[in-house]
Amino acid sequence: MTQDQDTICALATPTGIGAIGMIRLSGSQSLTIISAVFSKSLENKASHTTHFGVIKTKEGKLIDEVLVTVFEEGKSFTGEQSAEISCHGSSFILQQILRTLIEEGARIASPGEYTQRAFLNGKMDLSQAEAVADLIASKSKLSHSIALKQLRGGFSSELKMLREKLINFASLIELELDFAEEDVEFADRTQLKNMVEDTLNYVNRLSKSFELGNAIKNGVPITILGRPNAGKSTLLNALISDERAIVSEIAGTTRDTIEEILNIEGIDFRFIDTAGLRVTSNEIEKIGVERARKSAEKSTAYIYLFDANELSIKEVKEDLKELPLNVIKIIIANKIDKIDKAQLETLKNDGLDMALISAKNDNSLELLKSSILEKTMLNNLNEDETIVTNARHYDALIKTGLSLEKANDGISSGITSDFIAMDIRQAMYELGIITGDISTDDLLGNIFSKFCIGK
Amino acid sequence: MTQDQDTICALATPTGIGAIGMIRLSGSQSLTIISAVFSKSLENKASHTTHFGVIKTKEGKLIDEVLVTVFEEGKSFTGEQSAEISCHGSSFILQQILRTLIEEGARIASPGEYTQRAFLNGKMDLSQAEAVADLIASKSKLSHSIALKQLRGGFSSELKMLREKLINFASLIELELDFAEEDVEFADRTQLKNMVEDTLNYVNRLSKSFELGNAIKNGVPITILGRPNAGKSTLLNALISDERAIVSEIAGTTRDTIEEILNIEGIDFRFIDTAGLRVTSNEIEKIGVERARKSAEKSTAYIYLFDANELSIKEVKEDLKELPLNVIKIIIANKIDKIDKAQLETLKNDGLDMALISAKNDNSLELLKSSILEKTMLNNLNEDETIVTNARHYDALIKTGLSLEKANDGISSGITSDFIAMDIRQAMYELGIITGDISTDDLLGNIFSKFCIGK
Repeated sequence: MTQDQDTICALATPTGIGAIGMIRLSGSQSLTIISAVFSKSLENKASHTTHFGVIKTKEGKLIDEVLVTVFEEGKSFTGEQSAEISCHGSSFILQQILRTLIEEGARIASPGEYTQRAFLNGKMDLSQAEAVADLIASKSKLSHSIALKQLRGGFSSELKMLREKLINFASLIELELDFAEEDVEFADRTQLKNMVEDTLNYVNRLSKSFELGNAIKNGVPITILGRPNAGKSTLLNALISDERAIVSEIAGTTRDTIEEILNIEGIDFRFIDTAGLRVTSNEIEKIGVERARKSAEKSTAYIYLFDANELSIKEVKEDLKELPLNVIKIIIANKIDKIDKAQLETLKNDGLDMALISAKNDNSLELLKSSILEKTMLNNLNEDETIVTNARHYDALIKTGLSLEKANDGISSGITSDFIAMDIRQAMYELGIITGDISTDDLLGNIFSKFCIGK
Repeated sequence: MTQDQDTICALATPTGIGAIGMIRLSGSQSLTIISAVFSKSLENKASHTTHFGVIKTKEGKLIDEVLVTVFEEGKSFTGEQSAEISCHGSSFILQQILRTLIEEGARIASPGEYTQRAFLNGKMDLSQAEAVADLIASKSKLSHSIALKQLRGGFSSELKMLREKLINFASLIELELDFAEEDVEFADRTQLKNMVEDTLNYVNRLSKSFELGNAIKNGVPITILGRPNAGKSTLLNALISDERAIVSEIAGTTRDTIEEILNIEGIDFRFIDTAGLRVTSNEIEKIGVERARKSAEKSTAYIYLFDANELSIKEVKEDLKELPLNVIKIIIANKIDKIDKAQLETLKNDGLDMALISAKNDNSLELLKSSILEKTMLNNLNEDETIVTNARHYDALIKTGLSLEKANDGISSGITSDFIAMDIRQAMYELGIITGDISTDDLLGNIFSKFCIGK
């Protein structure tokens, strides 16, 4: 199973000072190499056993007291003979150990090489290998849960099922093909059409999930709009301080917008704070408004916040006219503690679906959060359903769908079986690209070069 | 052996994204707790075996695929039953696992609690426990080698030997004491005096090594002085770029000095770059000179650099008069490629011991480095000799020395054995403070609170 390759080594734990650092060795020489520098030979030790001892340099100078865990070929992450070395978490020690392993014949792993070897040795398919990086990078409950499902083979088994359906279909078609001269239609064309349509619907549902999946992976973008003094910053700050532990500020894509990530019920939302909306004759402010509008266009949703005490419904509607129509909008009337009952009734019956909040009211934040979840329809996600988060998978699914559509059209227009078979083969080929049944060195290079060294 | 305590858990690897993160559990309930959330029970597994499976939350939600290594009571770092959980290196996953372990009854470890337990359970003495933190923080070959020696018990065994000598001595003295009424002197006083003096010399050598040890641990401070345009910055930059990989810039202690760490032959040197030396009537420049002088005073050595083409030996000697006398000085004549043979001969025969260099000459850097090593006498360190790096140990050694001196004086002036015995007991007490044979909760709290959580 294992390919005849170099033995590789790399730091597996994050850089920085910690109690423990870990270096992984993988390849047929792992135990020979570690045994040469460890206080005892580990070559005949049972798989999954841990050994305490010291590591010395080739010149015999003590580096550290370490624990080494031994993994037999076929029983490790990569599928190769492997060893994990846990040492004291000092960069100096880690560097010394790596240098010593290299002197004994190992080489530093390329980015993603451990996972690539796991794939090449059949320990996982390509979509599972990609999930390793996603899982490590996952910061929210939902992105973690999607990546973990993919790593555990959830997505792979759906793809396998799809592929089996297409194989069945192809064999029916090809049976027909074999008897083509006798002009026999073995397969009931209506039944075939149903089969293709079912599969196509399934593929389309998967590719459609990518929009959501991509947003979940990178944070669902929500632009916050409103005139100056609508209470935008106060509200955003309140939201963020409320969840300080899981909020991080990241630099905006331009110097004029600030993004804050806020996790609501396990989903990361990226709030994009733009310059205030105020349509005036002033050239600079016009640019600000235009920028806000463009940001809203690229978002999953935008929040339009206004001061209920300052703006009339008419003015609100005028502002909204300037804003994109095809984006989910979340309208929020702020400072409602400052208006009277009559005004409140007007707001409630204005025909605009809005949340009424007051920064002074503790419930406001909760109201706003549930409003965001509800409007973006992220409040009742079915976690058992597969969500595609990877652009490469999305691309292959789109191409699978196109081939299936061609096959479907072909069945409808009564073209000959050989053309239909070709389309089905093409669809199977595209699915194979996702799982890595079909792969090229370029494709693998492209995927694994995005990993870090050590993974 | 193990004390009846809580089971503790903490992240052992550095924070940040990595391929692998590790959480340690320690305490009598470790295996019960991990078994409750792992895919199989680990309660009866052999020590030092590693098990693959999944961890789920209490609610049964999958967190990750992990490897768990089991350690029996008495066979772990802390001496307690322990488990190490290796998972994918995502903060989200690590947090989820910690939360789950806490829900099952573990608690987050205090800073240094693992090492503290190792000490309390007799796995190491206090000086070894302190070496754990030093080892993790060690950045240079020499500080690493000193910390590792201390961790491995090198220092402890020297202290043990000292203590044994004092015990022998005390028993001789006390034997005398028992027969005091009979006015018998069992021990030969001259022999006693030799014993005490030997021990005292040894203790003094250890405490004297602290100056060096402290410098090695924190970087040997060297102030760079010279008139403007002497070539100070060029030389420093050349030194530093030459060793870019192991150099880091740190903020100076004042806004007016810059420190650069440079590793020469495994020893960290802290180069402190000050304002240029130029004695003028200008008030501000006088302050600069004064600051440079003060920095030189606090350093192990200072480098005085001058442009051989610009300054006469007389001027150099005038500059040197302004500088501290009790600090090692390294005098460097720069730009010697620009002077003629006669001038060069004058420099060589001026009576000042100086290095002659030229920034254009490739050998200059090597010459400077060996000059620094040689002048600071760090070029032929005996690594087998114990070097004290810990201020607490230094303090206790100084006190041990004082007690031994009192004992020595007592023997010389012929005071009674009981007073001598008291001094010897005091010296033993001080040594015991280093190893932790004598310890208080306050002392332990003070030591381990400086560790990070997870150590």
